[in-house]
Amino acid sequence: MSSYNAPLNDIRFALYDVLGAEALFQRLGYADASRDIVDAVLEEAARFTGSVLAPLNSVGDEVGCSFDAASGDVTTPPGFRQAYQQFVDGGWSGLTSAADFGGQGLPHVLGVPLNEMINAANLAWGNFPLLSHGAVHALEHHGQDWQREVFLKPLVEGRWTGTMCLTEPHCGTDLGLLKTRATANADGESYSISGTKIFITAGEHDFTDNIVHLVLAKLPDAPPGAKGISLFVVPKFKVAGDGTVGERNGVRCGSIEHKMGIKASATCVINFDDAQGYLVGGAHKGLQAMFTMMNTARLGVGLQGIGLSERAYQNALRYARERLQSRALSGARFPDKPADPIIVHPDVRRMLLSIKSLVEGSRLLALHAGSLIDVAKRAADPKEREEAETLVSFLTPISKACQTEWGIENTYNAVQCFGGHGYIREHGIEQLARDARITTLYEGTTGIQALDLIGRKTAASHGAGLKLFLAQVQAFVKQHQDDQAMAEFIVPLARKAEEWASLTTDILQRAQDNPEELGAASYDYLFYSGYVVLAYWWARSVAAANASAHGADFRQSKLETARFYYARILPRTLTHAAAIQSGAAPLMAMADARFGE
Amino acid sequence: MSSYNAPLNDIRFALYDVLGAEALFQRLGYADASRDIVDAVLEEAARFTGSVLAPLNSVGDEVGCSFDAASGDVTTPPGFRQAYQQFVDGGWSGLTSAADFGGQGLPHVLGVPLNEMINAANLAWGNFPLLSHGAVHALEHHGQDWQREVFLKPLVEGRWTGTMCLTEPHCGTDLGLLKTRATANADGESYSISGTKIFITAGEHDFTDNIVHLVLAKLPDAPPGAKGISLFVVPKFKVAGDGTVGERNGVRCGSIEHKMGIKASATCVINFDDAQGYLVGGAHKGLQAMFTMMNTARLGVGLQGIGLSERAYQNALRYARERLQSRALSGARFPDKPADPIIVHPDVRRMLLSIKSLVEGSRLLALHAGSLIDVAKRAADPKEREEAETLVSFLTPISKACQTEWGIENTYNAVQCFGGHGYIREHGIEQLARDARITTLYEGTTGIQALDLIGRKTAASHGAGLKLFLAQVQAFVKQHQDDQAMAEFIVPLARKAEEWASLTTDILQRAQDNPEELGAASYDYLFYSGYVVLAYWWARSVAAANASAHGADFRQSKLETARFYYARILPRTLTHAAAIQSGAAPLMAMADARFGE
Repeated sequence: MSSYNAPLNDIRFALYDVLGAEALFQRLGYADASRDIVDAVLEEAARFTGSVLAPLNSVGDEVGCSFDAASGDVTTPPGFRQAYQQFVDGGWSGLTSAADFGGQGLPHVLGVPLNEMINAANLAWGNFPLLSHGAVHALEHHGQDWQREVFLKPLVEGRWTGTMCLTEPHCGTDLGLLKTRATANADGESYSISGTKIFITAGEHDFTDNIVHLVLAKLPDAPPGAKGISLFVVPKFKVAGDGTVGERNGVRCGSIEHKMGIKASATCVINFDDAQGYLVGGAHKGLQAMFTMMNTARLGVGLQGIGLSERAYQNALRYARERLQSRALSGARFPDKPADPIIVHPDVRRMLLSIKSLVEGSRLLALHAGSLIDVAKRAADPKEREEAETLVSFLTPISKACQTEWGIENTYNAVQCFGGHGYIREHGIEQLARDARITTLYEGTTGIQALDLIGRKTAASHGAGLKLFLAQVQAFVKQHQDDQAMAEFIVPLARKAEEWASLTTDILQRAQDNPEELGAASYDYLFYSGYVVLAYWWARSVAAANASAHGADFRQSKLETARFYYARILPRTLTHAAAIQSGAAPLMAMADARFGE
Repeated sequence: MSSYNAPLNDIRFALYDVLGAEALFQRLGYADASRDIVDAVLEEAARFTGSVLAPLNSVGDEVGCSFDAASGDVTTPPGFRQAYQQFVDGGWSGLTSAADFGGQGLPHVLGVPLNEMINAANLAWGNFPLLSHGAVHALEHHGQDWQREVFLKPLVEGRWTGTMCLTEPHCGTDLGLLKTRATANADGESYSISGTKIFITAGEHDFTDNIVHLVLAKLPDAPPGAKGISLFVVPKFKVAGDGTVGERNGVRCGSIEHKMGIKASATCVINFDDAQGYLVGGAHKGLQAMFTMMNTARLGVGLQGIGLSERAYQNALRYARERLQSRALSGARFPDKPADPIIVHPDVRRMLLSIKSLVEGSRLLALHAGSLIDVAKRAADPKEREEAETLVSFLTPISKACQTEWGIENTYNAVQCFGGHGYIREHGIEQLARDARITTLYEGTTGIQALDLIGRKTAASHGAGLKLFLAQVQAFVKQHQDDQAMAEFIVPLARKAEEWASLTTDILQRAQDNPEELGAASYDYLFYSGYVVLAYWWARSVAAANASAHGADFRQSKLETARFYYARILPRTLTHAAAIQSGAAPLMAMADARFGE
């Protein structure tokens, strides 16, 4: 079985030393978020996830969820329900929600390390509370007062959980095709919803008494396509306007999927059969509400990549230190042992440092995005709020796609460090790789994130998000331009930032003649962006470590990891830039029939 | 469930049009390998693998092998044993073995498409006959006459299967550490072998009456390390010098592993308890014999990557043509349908073309390596034989590592084309990805192949293999240097070939001062090499297609796939070159303790 200890030291470094969270929380008026409180929260989160959730991870994989076709009930693996009760009792469910709705009122950004830890400890378990956040945000932003009153508090407190019911058998990405229908009931308030949704995470389970489904459906007078989508809140047990829970609604789980991994996460077919629901937001305004849920969920899935990577790293590192095999090429390092530990071998170090540099860099990308949500919500200056909103929108597809793709790479490398032992269940490493595999698929595949970045978040907004990010990079470059010790990072960073801007201009120009250029560049543009973003965070990490009270070994470790990143990972931008520059023709020339029989 | 049809058209193109197999077979004196015969063999192989093996693939994954602890017996999934009987009855087992030992005497290279098809149809099943080949080669080259007489015929005919018993719990790569012991028996002929081997593929099963284990062990007077290893042949049931099968030997399966994939392949712990065995090759000469087995097995595992990739491609392509989702960016392509098939989207095409270009290119790399084995065995000129041997040795780690890593990438991309549907068992795509995951681990991890390439196959032989390969490239470049239509391939190919040579010189020079430079460059050097090798095969494919009798669509498809390869895949060499040039310091600087707690 694989072990997990929350990397509190690095989380604190990222929060306090790099992102200056103490000053930020004060500035944004989070009076309760003192360093003492935050430290206590992090330590308690580490304890809960390490001692309660992590030991259930392999049990969840072995046993999985089970489905009873007669009742439509889903039973979660042993210990899962009890762990959820502890989660609720500990107040974790509403850690960053407003006190008005039963939350703890702490900064949103603290949900980032909490969820990293949950995902590292037990990804499948983490999927049950995860989707509640999306539901909470949708109701907060688009719900009517009575809906907020009735549904939000139980969701925030974790007494109920939420879902996002979007996908149908014939439509995932293209929600304009959906067939679920809603018709107004005679009461003038509620709607009757019928249709089948698939791939509904936590759509049915035994954690809570009620489940709140947020369902996309079409009203009879809906315009065609995505503009005709409306959002409905549809509880498993009917809920009256005063919050009273009534009889069972026409909502039933039809089956659960058999999957490659996250076997303890119930992925449900949910059948709505004249189910009673309420419109959230205006008629045909569902798309906007959906994006509210989706963006929350996307950042959340990005954290799954980080959590799995961190756990993979810890276990690969331990194995690389213990496993004795062959001698260092430059001569025995431990002549008293029968062989050297494999961490002496350059290629094992390459794999470990790849994981380390991608995880620690990603952690900053994710925490930065999380902190921008706080700024967008609480900054005094409306311009600062708006810019934070623009920037986090821009970073969301990068964060989701890169962190999950790196999660796949990192768990891949961890398996590789274990050799054949990585492929058998015993060590628990192959589970991490199977679990990671879902993260680039759900909440929008990597290809969809790439289109979102180049399309909606860049082309449609004339690069507003990129400009804001590049301004940060340039300010940092300027601040350190005379610092000789930083030149090894500052010089290539400045060059990459310039190239990023010019590649963007190129793509947008070419797209004016041929819109396929956007799609053709999208994937490589996304990764190009991700690697430059991480280069920025690695440069900032070195500067922050040098200015921090951390010990010499910590500072040296940051410096050497940054050097590895710049020497061995950042050059991936060369390939991505070349691919972008090659344009759409190599992808689009081939007639569909010539792909094969 | 995923489907599979052997890509006979492309296999024939590669064999006949690119590699000139007809003339080669004639020149090497393979009188029976006329085009008619070879075509008939390929068609029958396609029928057998498609109709017998492929339908058992998902059954094998669902049911797996089962182990009876009381008897030590392994039961294979339903249908597996019967399929093996058909395989034996069809004469497939000895397709390329000498007629003297009951084989069909066809060229070795024909085993390449056969094994590609077997692996595509049912990788786990294919592992049972696979290891026999290594055993056959070891006995052919190193066995005494009576051993060849007694063991080879049943192995070639498939009445028995073979294994390679190398790994022990504490040693995989570093076989010098092994603890299995052999002592001479009083009969002056046999040895008594005791020890525990793990990860023994097909170590126990219900296909055949006997199993022939080739076991690495140490004699009492063995020098320490890898120089003290001897090879023994140890049958499950004792075999007398005259071939009579006797009582059960002291060989017993202790358990089978629970794995991420290839669940129908029995991965066994094999306990040897005073088992009777015979020395193969001289005392302490086991390493050489092991490399004979290993090289055969490595090329065989490389074909697993191709087989899985081909099946992944066929299914992803079918799905991309059927699944309707969103509209092409440049406007609806099928306005009469509710949405366009996803094959219109550039990023889906990127994934499909990545698979296509890597599979078809790999097929040539593998067939070329296979044909070199024929040349090494049968060419009249001893220099030609020796050069073929050198070249195939050089290409073996590239073939094994690249084809398996690309197999992982290709099955990854296929899952990605299916979106969330790729993650559930129903479509059979996630099985391909799980099965593929073993291929970069067994028979030497990718890191081990990389060290083999830069160390033994390059540094130790002063680049002899590389020089031979580059001479082929240069001859081809020269032949086409005035052909304007080929310039888009010839110019970059010539440049990459030059860069390959100069990167090699650089690494070897740096390694003189610091041997860690070899290890530090190894991984990136391997992939750099692989991408240039495929660039060569893609240029040759275009030239061969143009000169062939294939139709315009086929020729155009080759041309466009080659363009994709040069525009979108070959630029990966930029990243690998930069990583190589960054040297060992970014990997080696960090003290072990600074990797983390």
